Amino acid sequence: MELKEYLEYLVEFIRETVKNANAKGVVIGISGGIDSAVVACLAKKAFPNNYTAVWMPIESSEEDYKCKQELIDQCGIEAIDVELKETFLSFKKAIKESTTPDHKLAIANAKARLRMTTLYTVAQTNSYLVLGTDNLDEWHIGYFTKFGDGGVDMVPLVHLLKREVREAARILGVPASIINRAPTASLWENQTDESELGITYDQIDAYLAGEIYDEVVKTKVDHLHKISEHKRNGAVAPNEFKRK
Amino acid sequence: MELKEYLEYLVEFIRETVKNANAKGVVIGISGGIDSAVVACLAKKAFPNNYTAVWMPIESSEEDYKCKQELIDQCGIEAIDVELKETFLSFKKAIKESTTPDHKLAIANAKARLRMTTLYTVAQTNSYLVLGTDNLDEWHIGYFTKFGDGGVDMVPLVHLLKREVREAARILGVPASIINRAPTASLWENQTDESELGITYDQIDAYLAGEIYDEVVKTKVDHLHKISEHKRNGAVAPNEFKRK
Repeated sequence: MELKEYLEYLVEFIRETVKNANAKGVVIGISGGIDSAVVACLAKKAFPNNYTAVWMPIESSEEDYKCKQELIDQCGIEAIDVELKETFLSFKKAIKESTTPDHKLAIANAKARLRMTTLYTVAQTNSYLVLGTDNLDEWHIGYFTKFGDGGVDMVPLVHLLKREVREAARILGVPASIINRAPTASLWENQTDESELGITYDQIDAYLAGEIYDEVVKTKVDHLHKISEHKRNGAVAPNEFKRK
Repeated sequence: MELKEYLEYLVEFIRETVKNANAKGVVIGISGGIDSAVVACLAKKAFPNNYTAVWMPIESSEEDYKCKQELIDQCGIEAIDVELKETFLSFKKAIKESTTPDHKLAIANAKARLRMTTLYTVAQTNSYLVLGTDNLDEWHIGYFTKFGDGGVDMVPLVHLLKREVREAARILGVPASIINRAPTASLWENQTDESELGITYDQIDAYLAGEIYDEVVKTKVDHLHKISEHKRNGAVAPNEFKRK
């Protein structure tokens, strides 16, 4: 199947999923990154008059800001701003008073969860569903925040390798500045996914596509997949209670 | 099986689930209600030195406060406070500036999601798992906030009817004031679950246990179960991309 054709199917998939839920449209958080840019373009195609893109800066970089603005300008994405920095600082203060949140990753994940909370508030107000942005690489290795960016109603890109997301971005007319920037979860300043993971998306792509056999990549990817099972599955339930 | 015996199994279940995740203990949000009181008692039995109960008031009632305090005093539960009211107000302000959040339920659900965010921050800082409090009735009809109180790592009470949770509370020594109060999700002032649902937990219990056949109860419960499927399942995924 050609990717172009699959993207048309994804637009239909989004429409069908909304229809099956008796909802009216979709909401998508845009970060200035490529995955959310692609999903925003799909959202616009699926529901030209019933989508909301939401920009939710917390400690976002100047580059994030410029990239999301280019997306808005060049792809005609209509977006609203929800400035979450004050809420995030209030949250950090609240938790600091009573516990010990000196855990960089825990605090970073709280940002993703505040964004999820925002998207669902917008979604529920409009009878919209929340679109996720995870691609196959991220989903497979669990590179997302549980109930943060992983807390969504549907995951259109979940079967696409990172390189296919880049190709999709070109097909959909996403600005080159977004396509060419280094992938970052924007967890903290100057964070890049690949430096944090220790392997590149190209390596993960090649491994998942069955094109290479690299022991280091295999070990890393398989390990990350295994320890992130809980993020892809539901809550663990006990055995049933056999009532008399 | 006797309920007492099942509760002992649940303590073991909690321990095993934590062990399987290579975690060190558990965190539980306490609300002043019966479900979280029961789970807090189980958490203490499972990990006497490695559990954290968290009281997270937002617009909590005086009765919520008194009940959680009785739980702490009478059951010897050690708890920390994370005052979330300011964060919640900041969030409401942030969202109001850019959208139309005049949706009572959407705003109420945001409270549950801020609590989830808090519990995961505490959990991640301590390598703990997050305990859920949903019972069989709530789980079956989807009476919980997606990625809010539904956003947890394990659900020990998920097979127990509401009346069995009450019995469990008596066995575990939960204060009578908590056992006897009207169930409330504390979504807004004077909210009670049964007035919001239009049916009682006794009716849901009896229907789920197969003891009665009441057309009104059946219709209501089956309907709520159906429309809440998405809360119990994972995100909807499209068909695979068949790459060439």
